[in-house]
Amino acid sequence: MSFSPLLEELIKSLQCLPGVGPKSAQRMAFHLLDKNRRGAQQLSDTLAHAIADIGHCQRCRTFSEDDVCKLCLNPKRQQSGQLCVVETPADVLAIEQTAQFSGTYFVLMGHLSPLDGIGPDDIGMDILEQRLSQEGIEELILATNPTVEGEATAYYIAEMAAQYQVNVSRIAHGVPVGGELELVDGTTLSHSFAGRVPLK
Amino acid sequence: MSFSPLLEELIKSLQCLPGVGPKSAQRMAFHLLDKNRRGAQQLSDTLAHAIADIGHCQRCRTFSEDDVCKLCLNPKRQQSGQLCVVETPADVLAIEQTAQFSGTYFVLMGHLSPLDGIGPDDIGMDILEQRLSQEGIEELILATNPTVEGEATAYYIAEMAAQYQVNVSRIAHGVPVGGELELVDGTTLSHSFAGRVPLK
Ligand SMILES: [Zn+2]
Ligand SMILES: [Zn+2]
Repeated sequence: MSFSPLLEELIKSLQCLPGVGPKSAQRMAFHLLDKNRRGAQQLSDTLAHAIADIGHCQRCRTFSEDDVCKLCLNPKRQQSGQLCVVETPADVLAIEQTAQFSGTYFVLMGHLSPLDGIGPDDIGMDILEQRLSQEGIEELILATNPTVEGEATAYYIAEMAAQYQVNVSRIAHGVPVGGELELVDGTTLSHSFAGRVPLK
Repeated sequence: MSFSPLLEELIKSLQCLPGVGPKSAQRMAFHLLDKNRRGAQQLSDTLAHAIADIGHCQRCRTFSEDDVCKLCLNPKRQQSGQLCVVETPADVLAIEQTAQFSGTYFVLMGHLSPLDGIGPDDIGMDILEQRLSQEGIEELILATNPTVEGEATAYYIAEMAAQYQVNVSRIAHGVPVGGELELVDGTTLSHSFAGRVPLK
């Protein structure tokens, strides 16, 4: 005994979503069929549209339905001479929300991970190297995550950038502003001490 | 600053799914675009297909792409004379998995909830009454949830069924088999005492 074939198929299809198992997929299917068929139709349409049209920006690799994204097309951004390397499009959004940076970005869409077979070309190193060699970038800011993979990726990019006339910097790691010292993990606290700056 | 318009639209559309907020929708969108476009395409197709074709069984109201579902069409089931009333299609599945019941079902697709404007017709009472008057059902088993709404709904149906020659029963509530007495809530334990049966 199971649900009708089409309902079973819907429950199975919903499990392509990350974090959605059989039980939540069933709950989602019931909810959509019972309470929100209009939302379901819109989701179906938008999914099809997104898959067909969203690719990657040719300059920064972020998700974009245009060949070059709006941010990369902004001439003021281009003239800043600063290029910030991040792992995901969500990181771009987080940095933009600080309003502290007015350069352009390069989105790796991941990080180096030899064990998973993710090498330099998979994170766009060919495109980044081309940009470094052609664009007269003054500062390359490495804002990959402070994880083992993120640090290794930052190190790899720094090595590569050494061949070009470009200053390479890494964002600071330390105790979060507003955080309590006793609640911060040991690694972060070590970073915070190692990276201490003199008070003027 | 935000993502590209189409990506924003996808993130918003995914929030029609129950339990999915902006953050998980973003994670889902990235995952589908980056890692599983094929799954996303299939989800889009299946959703469209399901919305267009899945309706309700004319006899039992469960989700079905056929006018009458497989279970209702089964002549052995029809001849059993037993009709079990449940709140959701998932309840049918749960009861079928016990292999203890070989009659047909009636799926309310909810329960009476006057405060939410859900009255008898919204849970198919017109169809149920018609079946009770026409089909010579011998036993009506009320298997709504043991919640305030489920009990009230069961009571309502029992009252209605009193007009027809049909025995009405309610599934037993009590301490779950294999459960520990001290971990069972008080209401269940009270039910369990009130519904005690003599040892033969
Ligand atoms: Zn771009
Ligand atoms: Zn049916």
